[in-house]
Amino acid sequence: MEIFEVNILGCGSAKPTLRHLPSSQIVNIRGKYYMIDCGEGAQIQMQKMNLPMARIGHIFISHNHGDHVFGLPGLISTMALLGRTADLHIHGPQQLQEYLDNVIRIYCEGIAFQIIFHPIDTRVHNIIFKDRSVSVWSIPLQHRIPCSGFLFRETPPLPHIRREMIDAFNIPFSQINNIKAGASWTTEDGTVIPHERLVTPAEKARSYAYCSDTIYLPCITQILQDVTLLYHEATYPDDLQMRAQETLHSTASQAATIARDSHVEKLCIGHFSARVKEEELLLAEATAIFPQTRLAFEGLNIKL
Amino acid sequence: MEIFEVNILGCGSAKPTLRHLPSSQIVNIRGKYYMIDCGEGAQIQMQKMNLPMARIGHIFISHNHGDHVFGLPGLISTMALLGRTADLHIHGPQQLQEYLDNVIRIYCEGIAFQIIFHPIDTRVHNIIFKDRSVSVWSIPLQHRIPCSGFLFRETPPLPHIRREMIDAFNIPFSQINNIKAGASWTTEDGTVIPHERLVTPAEKARSYAYCSDTIYLPCITQILQDVTLLYHEATYPDDLQMRAQETLHSTASQAATIARDSHVEKLCIGHFSARVKEEELLLAEATAIFPQTRLAFEGLNIKL
Repeated sequence: MEIFEVNILGCGSAKPTLRHLPSSQIVNIRGKYYMIDCGEGAQIQMQKMNLPMARIGHIFISHNHGDHVFGLPGLISTMALLGRTADLHIHGPQQLQEYLDNVIRIYCEGIAFQIIFHPIDTRVHNIIFKDRSVSVWSIPLQHRIPCSGFLFRETPPLPHIRREMIDAFNIPFSQINNIKAGASWTTEDGTVIPHERLVTPAEKARSYAYCSDTIYLPCITQILQDVTLLYHEATYPDDLQMRAQETLHSTASQAATIARDSHVEKLCIGHFSARVKEEELLLAEATAIFPQTRLAFEGLNIKL
Repeated sequence: MEIFEVNILGCGSAKPTLRHLPSSQIVNIRGKYYMIDCGEGAQIQMQKMNLPMARIGHIFISHNHGDHVFGLPGLISTMALLGRTADLHIHGPQQLQEYLDNVIRIYCEGIAFQIIFHPIDTRVHNIIFKDRSVSVWSIPLQHRIPCSGFLFRETPPLPHIRREMIDAFNIPFSQINNIKAGASWTTEDGTVIPHERLVTPAEKARSYAYCSDTIYLPCITQILQDVTLLYHEATYPDDLQMRAQETLHSTASQAATIARDSHVEKLCIGHFSARVKEEELLLAEATAIFPQTRLAFEGLNIKL
């Protein structure tokens, strides 16, 4: 299977701790790197995890709170120092643009690449980006300011051609891509060998959803159905549910409930409050509802 | 002696490496914390070194390059999260104000403390701040944009009263501060005991100078005469002297020459280029000219 992995650069909440950096992730799909959020220290953590900055073409910012964006100026500056010339695309709520424009104007004079901002409508579930390997969709979340989650849907892989069929029917090399794409094969005597006999089925297309920051929002389970991996914020343990509601965050149980009701394969929880000293408690609360849960940590690499 | 120490949070140059964070320091004088520069990650390094953020009243920014300021937004946000109400004073070149205003307007709505910006005239050697413990002076440096070094001069300590003199002459407690401040003592029979017999001399007032970023600038030795500790940038080794000159930075030998010609007690070099893999080479080049040289590193605490 081609590579599809999520790297956690930071999974703390706004107040940094010795345990966690603020939010940032790198999604690697078939060797292309997509960044989600960019809290302070993201570029340093990328170096620690040996993730190449030059491979990032698109950055997706969930919302314009400092703990999700204060790493951008340093990242952009370092890209410039590394001699980048390729366009850098930044997708985020409209609110992000003013800060970005300021940073570019004040600190990026004469850099050799374009920074192209793509505003996201945080109220709707829309496709916001597509390339050969992936389509990225917005997920409307509810936080104190406009906020969007992101759903990465791998482009469905093609089925595998069966080597013995190539040999048995003398199928020329030039026809293999056609057959992978769905064609049947007609032999010289006119017999039609149906597509299904020529291939073994493709792997299921994988998908990754990032939901942070948000209040518990049951309606997003419609969007998240059958996702391979869900990262959902779990800022607080259950006993701080009122605090979660007031600050428009979620508890570990709420994250797990979203995962269960979305029938996702796996859940990873993060965005831990600095108040949480024992993350195992969050894990226990979540696994009671959805067993396939794990805790995020800086340096975690999850292969889908 | 009362405390006077320098804590190195970061001593790399613009491109972060796995060895170094960008520039930031905390000067602790008699329990008050003064920050110098604030590169990305400074607040995280403060936590690692267990330095209390609440004690910072004044921040001194040398110049408006990203590697000296990109830690400010996160630091200010965290101060707000920690419930700060005390004014925060930021001293820096005028160029810093626009970025600071943007950050405050976009990210600091409703914070409970004032941020007061004090522009520095980077062309002159002037006093820019004074409190009971210290006076801080600008040092005009030469870099690609307006840049100021900082000279921290401890308020001269008072001499120590000699306990045996108190007993011998029955000096009342109420007079001790007068005597420390320079008064003599007249006994009941009218004999004048001169001040000098009543005290042991005070320790020498200590001083700390921060010079980064700058081209080699011999004229600053006038300002730096007899400083206790000098931190001077040494971005490059000697064989990159042309590069240093082009980018308005200094080499290790140049830093040491400044230290030698200023008759400082000790030199600490930093702001190492990411190109420098062997900092021992910089140290060797510097100590050949000024033996009392050490390399900065993240976590270094120097007591003056």
